[in-house]
Amino acid sequence: MADGRVIEGVYLSEVYDLHELYGHALAPHAGMIRLRHPHEIDNPEEIRFALSWRPAADAFDPYPNLRLAHSIAAGVDSIINCPSLPKDALVARVRDPDQGDMLAGFAAWHVIWHHRNMRHHIVHETKHEWARLIPSTMKPPRETPVGILGFGLMGRAIARAVTALGFPVVAAARTTPRETMPGVRFESAEGAALRVAEQAAILINVLPLTGETRGLLDLDFFNRMPEGAALIQLGRGEHLVEADLLRALDSGRIASASLDVFDVEPLPKEHPFWADERILVTPHQAGDCSPHRMAEQLARAAQAVVAGDTPKTVVDRSNGY
Amino acid sequence: MADGRVIEGVYLSEVYDLHELYGHALAPHAGMIRLRHPHEIDNPEEIRFALSWRPAADAFDPYPNLRLAHSIAAGVDSIINCPSLPKDALVARVRDPDQGDMLAGFAAWHVIWHHRNMRHHIVHETKHEWARLIPSTMKPPRETPVGILGFGLMGRAIARAVTALGFPVVAAARTTPRETMPGVRFESAEGAALRVAEQAAILINVLPLTGETRGLLDLDFFNRMPEGAALIQLGRGEHLVEADLLRALDSGRIASASLDVFDVEPLPKEHPFWADERILVTPHQAGDCSPHRMAEQLARAAQAVVAGDTPKTVVDRSNGY
Ligand SMILES: NC(=O)c1ccc[n+]([C@@H]2O[C@H](COP(=O)([O-])OP(=O)(O)OC[C@H]3O[C@@H](n4cnc5c(N)ncnc54)[C@H](OP(=O)(O)O)[C@@H]3O)[C@@H](O)[C@H]2O)c1
Ligand SMILES: NC(=O)c1ccc[n+]([C@@H]2O[C@H](COP(=O)([O-])OP(=O)(O)OC[C@H]3O[C@@H](n4cnc5c(N)ncnc54)[C@H](OP(=O)(O)O)[C@@H]3O)[C@@H](O)[C@H]2O)c1
Repeated sequence: MADGRVIEGVYLSEVYDLHELYGHALAPHAGMIRLRHPHEIDNPEEIRFALSWRPAADAFDPYPNLRLAHSIAAGVDSIINCPSLPKDALVARVRDPDQGDMLAGFAAWHVIWHHRNMRHHIVHETKHEWARLIPSTMKPPRETPVGILGFGLMGRAIARAVTALGFPVVAAARTTPRETMPGVRFESAEGAALRVAEQAAILINVLPLTGETRGLLDLDFFNRMPEGAALIQLGRGEHLVEADLLRALDSGRIASASLDVFDVEPLPKEHPFWADERILVTPHQAGDCSPHRMAEQLARAAQAVVAGDTPKTVVDRSNGY
Repeated sequence: MADGRVIEGVYLSEVYDLHELYGHALAPHAGMIRLRHPHEIDNPEEIRFALSWRPAADAFDPYPNLRLAHSIAAGVDSIINCPSLPKDALVARVRDPDQGDMLAGFAAWHVIWHHRNMRHHIVHETKHEWARLIPSTMKPPRETPVGILGFGLMGRAIARAVTALGFPVVAAARTTPRETMPGVRFESAEGAALRVAEQAAILINVLPLTGETRGLLDLDFFNRMPEGAALIQLGRGEHLVEADLLRALDSGRIASASLDVFDVEPLPKEHPFWADERILVTPHQAGDCSPHRMAEQLARAAQAVVAGDTPKTVVDRSNGY
């Protein structure tokens, strides 16, 4: 800090103890920023920033001088939608290229899971059975279009991976991306996601959660997809109408699905998704940010805000993501 | 054919009925080439080429005018090593870019299987358990070098895929490749495979089977690898000393392995690999050639040979692959 004072921050989360999770990564930045839990704070007017993940509805109320709400992750939906978030606070996310690589690998793994029917091999291995799939039942990647909903930091990393495996990609964004990518076609503006879905043998969702994208993956949406398509859901649980996915699977419209995010997390033990062989459940594991990169970007963003600058990692609140 | 005569060929395989497998793909080329089983052939001197896969030791003996032995696949080991193969016969393989894409996806899937410990998720799904892996136990792709043994049609496709997932790649070939690839370093000449193994957190074998590569993956080899490495074996069963892999797994040198090819295929039901949780067994499924592309290339190669030309798909027999 220019004047040498440590910038004061607060942990705001209803679901995690953020100090327990990130204390060690934040430690090297102790000369610059200090974070405490709300109950440890005597002078709330000193608080200039928050590290947040699913904050309580009134979480921001006590802090009149808070100017920055920083996510622990790529998504900022739980912060932007928090009613007590000050109107003039900047909202920042983590931008971690390693996380892009992690999501790319995870998404590519699920693409092949569906394309090559890898569940078949897992099942037959359990029975000690050599059971070759007939190659002619598989279309080559070249003839298997993969749709990607969202072409931000995550969508781009995924597109790079999936095209390198030989799959043609069609991606949806709000605005046409300035940078094109070989092997990727784009849909943008109103209805982009639906137009991508109509073309996708395998569809990957990495949209942010906004007013427009909540509940997007419903029965109408699935019915526009090619018969026998696969869904890979890595966005947010609230994108998907869970009961509609089961209907689309029963009708055969959707043949199989990979789900990493859910309405309720952890996914309750009695949830029908667990036992459904058509669905592969993973525990919100597609890819976390590196805690160290998060801590670095948080420290830099806090400094920028106090100095009157706009941190590079700030999102446009008016977009809702 | 220039003079309009159909070129005569023979199916030579001890293990497959090649007519049953490829008759439909060969049918469109019936005006150019005709293939029959040995017992259907009255005038063996008319036979100019063979379609072969693991031919019997004396399979080629009856055909004095055979000039081309064509594989159904990328590998030619069972043909080159056949004692009755005429010294002057050309040996051709299939060169199928779709097969490259198939192997690339399959290899990438196994890379992520080991890197992200996907077995964990499969196991916990079965128990309906939400069991997140702690992200800090995973190194990002950037810090996880992947070794590739063999940089031919398959190795190159795999390298393209694996680098796109963010992994640095080091690849072994006999000769230094003329074309480099971003993110790929090379080892070549004597000892190249071992030098790659020494650097690889995850090692993919797609070597051809030759005198030099038979039995390469033995205990000495594994002991040169980094502690806790993973092996993805897509080459030929004979590359691997199976008992040595179990020893390397027991010592912890190798943490986990994916095996697609075996000494004896189908892998016998009582084989210890099936029940070993550290090993994922698949039934020689990494990627077949398209039967249609094989048939096309066979027809073209037969024509070339009869016209006195060298088909583009011929391999250098003196290399042994
Ligand atoms: N499962 C996991 O572990 C995990 C991990 C990381 C991220 N995620 C999820 O992935 C989301 C995206 O992350 P990111 O870093 O890629 O975000 P980002 O960089 O903000 O990109 C968001 C992309 O979505 C597009 N978009 C937004 N609203 C849209 C709409 N209504 N229709 C079509 N496209 C729309 C944006 O279009 P423009 O390009 O026009 O802005 C942009 O391309 C996160 O918000 C989070 O929900 C999940
Ligand atoms: N599991 C499956 O389903 C499946 C499917 C397809 C292929 N395969 C296996 O994969 C093998 C490779 O296929 P491909 O199409 O890539 O063959 P390829 O185009 O002939 O390439 C072979 C590569 O191996 C290198 N090589 C040969 N001997 C070597 C040695 N002693 N040390 C280091 N490198 C060596 C070659 O070096 P140079 O570049 O210097 O020639 C070349 O880069 C096939 O032979 C087959 O065994 C398996």
